[in-house]
Amino acid sequence: MNRQIVLAARPAGYPKESDFKLLEKTIPVPEPGQILLRIIYLSLDPYMRGLMSARDSYARSLQIGDLMTGGTVGKVIQSEHPDFKKGDIVEGMLGWQEYAVSDGKDLRKIDPKVAPISTALGVLGMPGLTAYFGLLEVARPKSGETVVISGAAGAVGSAAGQIAKIRECRVVGIAGSDAKTNYMVGELGFDAAFNYRSIENYYEALHEICPEGIDVYFDNVGGAISDAAFRLLKPNARIAVCGQISQYNLEKPEMGPRLLPYLLVKHARAEGFLVFQFRDLYPQALAELARWLQAGRLKYREDIVDGIENAPRAFIGMLHGHNMGKQLVKLSVP
Amino acid sequence: MNRQIVLAARPAGYPKESDFKLLEKTIPVPEPGQILLRIIYLSLDPYMRGLMSARDSYARSLQIGDLMTGGTVGKVIQSEHPDFKKGDIVEGMLGWQEYAVSDGKDLRKIDPKVAPISTALGVLGMPGLTAYFGLLEVARPKSGETVVISGAAGAVGSAAGQIAKIRECRVVGIAGSDAKTNYMVGELGFDAAFNYRSIENYYEALHEICPEGIDVYFDNVGGAISDAAFRLLKPNARIAVCGQISQYNLEKPEMGPRLLPYLLVKHARAEGFLVFQFRDLYPQALAELARWLQAGRLKYREDIVDGIENAPRAFIGMLHGHNMGKQLVKLSVP
Repeated sequence: MNRQIVLAARPAGYPKESDFKLLEKTIPVPEPGQILLRIIYLSLDPYMRGLMSARDSYARSLQIGDLMTGGTVGKVIQSEHPDFKKGDIVEGMLGWQEYAVSDGKDLRKIDPKVAPISTALGVLGMPGLTAYFGLLEVARPKSGETVVISGAAGAVGSAAGQIAKIRECRVVGIAGSDAKTNYMVGELGFDAAFNYRSIENYYEALHEICPEGIDVYFDNVGGAISDAAFRLLKPNARIAVCGQISQYNLEKPEMGPRLLPYLLVKHARAEGFLVFQFRDLYPQALAELARWLQAGRLKYREDIVDGIENAPRAFIGMLHGHNMGKQLVKLSVP
Repeated sequence: MNRQIVLAARPAGYPKESDFKLLEKTIPVPEPGQILLRIIYLSLDPYMRGLMSARDSYARSLQIGDLMTGGTVGKVIQSEHPDFKKGDIVEGMLGWQEYAVSDGKDLRKIDPKVAPISTALGVLGMPGLTAYFGLLEVARPKSGETVVISGAAGAVGSAAGQIAKIRECRVVGIAGSDAKTNYMVGELGFDAAFNYRSIENYYEALHEICPEGIDVYFDNVGGAISDAAFRLLKPNARIAVCGQISQYNLEKPEMGPRLLPYLLVKHARAEGFLVFQFRDLYPQALAELARWLQAGRLKYREDIVDGIENAPRAFIGMLHGHNMGKQLVKLSVP
């Protein structure tokens, strides 16, 4: 039996469990040129919230009844494809389901000897690559610069902060719990961090930690935290716009202070990016990330729930910031 | 007698004539190593509004009683400096006054044979350079792309639009009168233009003219016009943030829709800049601008008022968009 999660209703604001539906299908049979995969890990990521809306900003909305989109790591259990053999571990966008057939296109083979296979969805996967390119190609910090990261305990933010430390920056993380800020400073080596849920005035908190201002702002959240960061930009500052999670679940768009005047006065640059823009550079980036991981310079945490039936609840919790580290769902044993 | 205009009071909102004061001083006498200049043209520019506030964003506020800052073209009438001789025409930041002494530093000699000397304050001066670098170094349009310019009839905007035409772009100008839009389309060769004062919905107007979206937005005004432009950005769009004149005279900062989500979704780049960042490239840029001017590919208009006593009124009018072309004050005959 192949259990799948499909979109049942379009959420208003934060998704509810009733916006998802669990279906039981038969396990598909691979045709010649195809492989059958048993999914081991499903990745839950903020971008999925956008796909659930009628008009996703990236214009790839799901329809009601569609299988939920998602990155996965799976094991080949039957191969009718010359390039794959039974037992291969692969990573690909196979959705919220327990089994999948694939023609092998857009699948990446994972070497389990390099690192635990779950990292193919985290620090050695899309989140790690997003951090890598957003920081090194978009923001381009120089050693000694002050780098502020919002959503800094998440899969992308925690990698971005550690890469900034490797590049000898001063790194300040913003997150939504003391456990997260303690983790960043105590385990990841960030220079400072603050819990935005425990303070009233983000600007004052950030100003105290960054009295000389901000050279690089790696933004995962947007909203009022970004407003505070913009007020502290130094001349020639760079803002890598990686995510805007504070805006994804609003029922109507919120207003905020105008930010273009800050860009003008500080001759600063704000740049949105998608990891796919850097597709051609993935192999070198993954090799460098793996080296840092093996050298202990890049740490990660995973927040793993068991069973596809628990994916909706875990996804909703992640949108509320309840996860600590990369949010995964374990669908089967490796 | 050397008449000068000094700051009399800090404006609340738009400046009034009483915020300025006319003083009569004696004409200064140059010491060895100095020159005495008679000012011919004074340039009036939007950035001056910022300097009149207690906290100019660029941190170079004027004090009450200070000579108003301004770019000028003048003639050397007495030289005690080996590098200058009587009759030389120079450009420099000598302020709102009829005579000035200078040690020659930061003065640029102007060759009257290249073009009328007033152009040293316009198309062959800071505005022309601002357009040149903002477009070609910051926004970097490719041929065939759609370039939208706000404040497009001004000294910077009209040059930026014509340079975009030289680079084979489709150019759309936004300005505040039909005379200005007719000028852009009829004389400067813009492909389309609209008068934002004659319409209610900027987004709809811009969408109709740019049904496929905007590749480059050269922003001189900010505010609601920029909000509309951001909604129409194409993937990989670039925004050169050159000015935000709609915000300069507000008594308190206004709120607006959040713009970072647009940068994210379109992986677009918004970059503020100051012409001084490109100082090292001025000579080549001025040579190219002069070639275009002489070839008739770069046109300009000037709005010239006579007499320093009329500078405050002309400045206030310019902030309201009453000028047509580069706003100058003629202080003496060449």
